[in-house]
Amino acid sequence: MFDNKNLFKTPISEYGEFGLIEHLTKNLSLFNSSTLKSIGDDACVLDSKNKEVLVSSDTLVENIHFNLTYTPLKHLGYKAVVVGISDIIAMNAIPEQILISIAISNRFPVEALDEIYAGISTACNFYKIDLVGGDTTSSNLGLVINITAIGYAKKEDIVYRNGAKPNDLLVVTGDLGGAYFGLQVLERENVAFKANPNLQPDLNDYTYLLERQLKPEARVEIKNLLEEMQVHPTSMIDISDGLASEILHLSQKSNVGFSIYEDKIPMDNQVISTASEFGINPVTGVLNGGEDYEILFTIPVSEHDKIKHNPNFSIIGHATQNNKNFLVTKGQNEIIPLRAQGWEAYLKN
Amino acid sequence: MFDNKNLFKTPISEYGEFGLIEHLTKNLSLFNSSTLKSIGDDACVLDSKNKEVLVSSDTLVENIHFNLTYTPLKHLGYKAVVVGISDIIAMNAIPEQILISIAISNRFPVEALDEIYAGISTACNFYKIDLVGGDTTSSNLGLVINITAIGYAKKEDIVYRNGAKPNDLLVVTGDLGGAYFGLQVLERENVAFKANPNLQPDLNDYTYLLERQLKPEARVEIKNLLEEMQVHPTSMIDISDGLASEILHLSQKSNVGFSIYEDKIPMDNQVISTASEFGINPVTGVLNGGEDYEILFTIPVSEHDKIKHNPNFSIIGHATQNNKNFLVTKGQNEIIPLRAQGWEAYLKN
Repeated sequence: MFDNKNLFKTPISEYGEFGLIEHLTKNLSLFNSSTLKSIGDDACVLDSKNKEVLVSSDTLVENIHFNLTYTPLKHLGYKAVVVGISDIIAMNAIPEQILISIAISNRFPVEALDEIYAGISTACNFYKIDLVGGDTTSSNLGLVINITAIGYAKKEDIVYRNGAKPNDLLVVTGDLGGAYFGLQVLERENVAFKANPNLQPDLNDYTYLLERQLKPEARVEIKNLLEEMQVHPTSMIDISDGLASEILHLSQKSNVGFSIYEDKIPMDNQVISTASEFGINPVTGVLNGGEDYEILFTIPVSEHDKIKHNPNFSIIGHATQNNKNFLVTKGQNEIIPLRAQGWEAYLKN
Repeated sequence: MFDNKNLFKTPISEYGEFGLIEHLTKNLSLFNSSTLKSIGDDACVLDSKNKEVLVSSDTLVENIHFNLTYTPLKHLGYKAVVVGISDIIAMNAIPEQILISIAISNRFPVEALDEIYAGISTACNFYKIDLVGGDTTSSNLGLVINITAIGYAKKEDIVYRNGAKPNDLLVVTGDLGGAYFGLQVLERENVAFKANPNLQPDLNDYTYLLERQLKPEARVEIKNLLEEMQVHPTSMIDISDGLASEILHLSQKSNVGFSIYEDKIPMDNQVISTASEFGINPVTGVLNGGEDYEILFTIPVSEHDKIKHNPNFSIIGHATQNNKNFLVTKGQNEIIPLRAQGWEAYLKN
């Protein structure tokens, strides 16, 4: 391996159109019988098998959604798949295909694209997703990745944002805030490294947070888990922006309000200790941070007993008659209106 | 209208996430009963009605695919739809939905997004396409538009790139080279304008070329036209890159060669006169230029009589046993191997 000095220097222009796409996708497998025709024509061809078809589109932009200083390209490719399929999972559907379009500067060698595709391929293998199309184009503007995700569900299984009813319980999977505080750690170390490149950061205390930020997972198992438990969600969304923003989405679409309880929000110990280190209230990070890709949903209060002791789920609040949204602080000393700060920060760049 | 001095200066950040998407999409209509759920959830929901589903993804990058100096934003929005649905048409399918994701710098005001969406909306109305999703995100890298196009066809109607047989006739819709020479004119006037901003260019001699470049149309009617004529294409592709590149795609996928005849290539008079003015062989422009969004397809030689006098179609050559591809020049004095120069130019940016 080390005898090839040009290993990381193959210019993209050395491949023709045919060659580059074939090279990048040669190790990909197909998993789903819904894929009739994959890469290699003007469009892919899919068989929905009498189910409804769900499609979403997301864009990841360099220096807005990721910083290549500390984001390995392989992780970026993996995360692109997760971001895409999480939207399908959030409709209570099963993701089966993605199309990925990449605009990349010629300052990147082919080996950079190889890394991105290695990450895409790893995620596709893990989640049994078929990469069925896309586009690779030049960019003199940096790296932009667009992900189209496609999934399927029976009509009666699809869960929208607009079905929450007053008194429904608000439930979240996993724990929250990890990705946000992982980003804070990476940003801090990046600044420290720029000031003194000889510094070797000790990141042992943040391993969980860094994994949540750099290699998030999509909750692809939730649909089956809820089915087994005979739990019937009434509304559903994924947590890509902050928890506050997602709650406001459910609130607006369902025309209900939500009250959530600070002490019910699931957080890992690393979130709490790192928040303290940064002098940030951990709940503020959870409400405004985002990128956890957990699933937020409502269930009828009658299904409380089915879910209450399941370690995969936390009941964090409930829906109310009016469309006002509040955080109730610990000890119920204070009631704070929820605002969608995630989105505003997003647009500040 | 003119009493509002801030008309073109609304910062994107003035809209929240809900407000911006609602504002941009409020005038859009839905045309297709395959659209069960449009914008406003994590994914759109579509009913394929027992047909196969076709999906494509394209990216348009500022300064690579368009130059905002001479591309009106409304035209850019229109063209984005055309670029997207052309891929579906090229499978002999009917496009019905698009998702459009835009990464845009905050240096653009909301009114710039309004213009892009006005073009998207005009195209969607004209082609009866439903805009069912997408993403609007910040970019500090310029403007990037991704288009996911979705269409439907019966399995037996879909035409792939790989079905051409030796002796099949190679047919193209419309005429070629207009978009390429329109771009040459725009680039020349742009340079002249930079040198002397008081120059008022007279573009009357180039109206057709400019329209082909700035407001191309997708050949959405071809499927019905071929059905009415009882013509059965064996392979099909759209001309988004140069004619040479598209022929090489059909050749490679079908494992045949093609011979095309210079004097059979349909070109508008403005293409020929403008090529002469620029000192470029018009056929070179056609072979390497691209962006005409005409449809290139093969038919069995037995269907020659059905198509030969139809003004919508030109028979420009035929498929051969080996997989070599040639241009036969006028008077058959020379036989020139075809090369895919479009792609190489593409990557040079």
